[in-house]
Amino acid sequence: MQIKVDQARLSSELQRLAAISDCPEPPPAVTRIVFTETDLQARAYLQTLLEDAGLKVRVDPVGNTFARWAGSDASAPAVGTGSHTDAIPHAGMYDGTVGVLGGIEAIRGLQRAGFRPRRSIELVAFTSEEPTRFGIGCTGSRAMAGLFTEEDLARYVDADGETYDAVRKRAGFTGPVRDCLLPPGHYHAWIELHIEQGPELERAGLPIGIVTAIAAPATLRYTVHGEGGHAGAVLMARRKDALFAAAEMVGLIERVVGEVGSPDLVATVGMLQVHPGASNSIPSRVTLTLDIRDVERSHRDQALERIMSAVQAVAGRRGVRLEQETLNWDPPAKAGQEVLAAIRKACDASGKPYMELVSRAYHDSVFLAQLAPMGMVFIPCRGGVSHRPDEYSSPEQISAGVEVLALALAELAK
Amino acid sequence: MQIKVDQARLSSELQRLAAISDCPEPPPAVTRIVFTETDLQARAYLQTLLEDAGLKVRVDPVGNTFARWAGSDASAPAVGTGSHTDAIPHAGMYDGTVGVLGGIEAIRGLQRAGFRPRRSIELVAFTSEEPTRFGIGCTGSRAMAGLFTEEDLARYVDADGETYDAVRKRAGFTGPVRDCLLPPGHYHAWIELHIEQGPELERAGLPIGIVTAIAAPATLRYTVHGEGGHAGAVLMARRKDALFAAAEMVGLIERVVGEVGSPDLVATVGMLQVHPGASNSIPSRVTLTLDIRDVERSHRDQALERIMSAVQAVAGRRGVRLEQETLNWDPPAKAGQEVLAAIRKACDASGKPYMELVSRAYHDSVFLAQLAPMGMVFIPCRGGVSHRPDEYSSPEQISAGVEVLALALAELAK
Repeated sequence: MQIKVDQARLSSELQRLAAISDCPEPPPAVTRIVFTETDLQARAYLQTLLEDAGLKVRVDPVGNTFARWAGSDASAPAVGTGSHTDAIPHAGMYDGTVGVLGGIEAIRGLQRAGFRPRRSIELVAFTSEEPTRFGIGCTGSRAMAGLFTEEDLARYVDADGETYDAVRKRAGFTGPVRDCLLPPGHYHAWIELHIEQGPELERAGLPIGIVTAIAAPATLRYTVHGEGGHAGAVLMARRKDALFAAAEMVGLIERVVGEVGSPDLVATVGMLQVHPGASNSIPSRVTLTLDIRDVERSHRDQALERIMSAVQAVAGRRGVRLEQETLNWDPPAKAGQEVLAAIRKACDASGKPYMELVSRAYHDSVFLAQLAPMGMVFIPCRGGVSHRPDEYSSPEQISAGVEVLALALAELAK
Repeated sequence: MQIKVDQARLSSELQRLAAISDCPEPPPAVTRIVFTETDLQARAYLQTLLEDAGLKVRVDPVGNTFARWAGSDASAPAVGTGSHTDAIPHAGMYDGTVGVLGGIEAIRGLQRAGFRPRRSIELVAFTSEEPTRFGIGCTGSRAMAGLFTEEDLARYVDADGETYDAVRKRAGFTGPVRDCLLPPGHYHAWIELHIEQGPELERAGLPIGIVTAIAAPATLRYTVHGEGGHAGAVLMARRKDALFAAAEMVGLIERVVGEVGSPDLVATVGMLQVHPGASNSIPSRVTLTLDIRDVERSHRDQALERIMSAVQAVAGRRGVRLEQETLNWDPPAKAGQEVLAAIRKACDASGKPYMELVSRAYHDSVFLAQLAPMGMVFIPCRGGVSHRPDEYSSPEQISAGVEVLALALAELAK
């Protein structure tokens, strides 16, 4: 079977989706935060594409969108594919969207090739892969795996103090979150197409990466409570400046990661907010997030334990109070052998050379791995750059990924 | 002459002004940012008090409000007093307001006592003593001294990127900024009543502080330009994380201040903003402010020069680009002998013991010192705390300050 990808159509759909954005700059800069008006507009656009492809659409209580191409054997577990359409502030236009719009094009390509699946093929657009609004990512796929609960709906709040539950309901997504849980055997296999977000494929000059494992991420939120006051009037020796304390903690995080010496260990303090935030006011409170990952769970946890005790020591010495909250502390995920074999076969059949690699970026597939054998197809992105407006994969690179995805889906669904 | 302060009325006016606030918490927490709707409401309330006191009100092109009690010698330079009503986010209700509402009560007290001034007495409510919105404080008093120009109106922008000029005009303040400049000899003398914002008076158990000098503040804004990217996908060795660089710089600022060893030297990083600000995104840009002060200009400048070279070295070593912008770099101000003598005489006449001290906090009087002999009257505030909701001076403490202010104004205006 040969898949002809409609590259022009897919490019134009990616462009059109990118234009649905809250970023003050035009595309390719994109901001699309979960449950905003913009997110809902993107979902509406997606709905039209799914319906045009003849797929049957279902939306679950947290807004995960499922679109099904019914197979000849309705009782057989389906083959799933998909990704997400939300984007962090000032992001690019390919992260996530390539797996959703590319997934639709893979299905259309199979339809045009006359393929008739035995197993149903189900495309998923996940809610909130990015943690921007609530501090926790992959809420949609977590809910599908039963790892995002009624309690979590009330626990996670956005910057305005609104709960996930209140915000999803206002966006029109209602019903008990337990209804998001997929029954055992819902999926026979799962594949996600995604840009690499790293430089390996570009360096190796290869069009396809086959992901064998996804790194185990953990995200913590620290709040440092110091003492505010006037920037002129309080002498240094009497201060409990929350930012001076936080800066020392950030420095320690960087140092510990260097000392642990695991080549795959990465740590990022991506958010840091200073209260009250005036140039002439001593910071009384600082909130920061720590994102830490390694392909090896033990390396990550070892670094995390050292960081946790080091920052507590700083707080004790400086007389500031430190709150620590674990936003997520997830396991790594390994790809399933049958899925890996299907992707390798698809690469060989379409003449696409590939390499096998690990994903240090986080994906909904981490949680889908709890539901079914999982695999991911990576395509190169320029300079390994992502989460920035200059994130870029060419139409040809995207098409190659879609072709491999389509053939692998067919292999698994036949 | 005996001044009877109407303590109940003044307390109620302070309460009423405190209720005009954008702070989500109720008074005593106050947020009142220049040129907001709330600022305009506070100005309107002030206007009614000034008119009730029979004062002639004039507003200049940046919104400084002048209220004049005409003296018998209309051609003689006036005696000025006043302060500000703007408040940083989550501030208290006494900083600035005591000098404005207390200044009005001092005038009313003199009127009730039957005093007839020879020199006019002019109360000023300054625009934007606090630097919150535009990064520069004392814009009103700077403009009166000719140190805030047409160029500055276009140069200073708020967080939404709007210029000072655009924002003041929308708030209804128009006209060329050079019209704010006061002619030589406008004031014969200037006195500002203010809470101490430090612990000295409370410790000494004294009701009045006479300020002999105001510390010389400088404020710089640094922007660190690194490289963004995905928090999982970019290995540590390949990163140029703007926040790791900024945290090291903040640590150096704290260390240099400790090493310079001047007892009065204080440094504060009160604002620090991370871009793009997502937990799973490597910071590509960090903006921070440095506020540094000393009573001795040379100590401050020596520390600042060391900091400037140290942060540049960090930027160079880490391969990030550093922008530095000087928001203000002001001289210290010394009180005028005639004003000091009038305040001392007022303290003696009313039986108020006092101490002489320096102000490490910044005041509009720094710039008024360029126009006329200047003095400040401090009253105690609990724990030396300010710029926080628990900032507090008792009605009795405020009344004592008003009484001394009234007698000193009378002495200078007679």
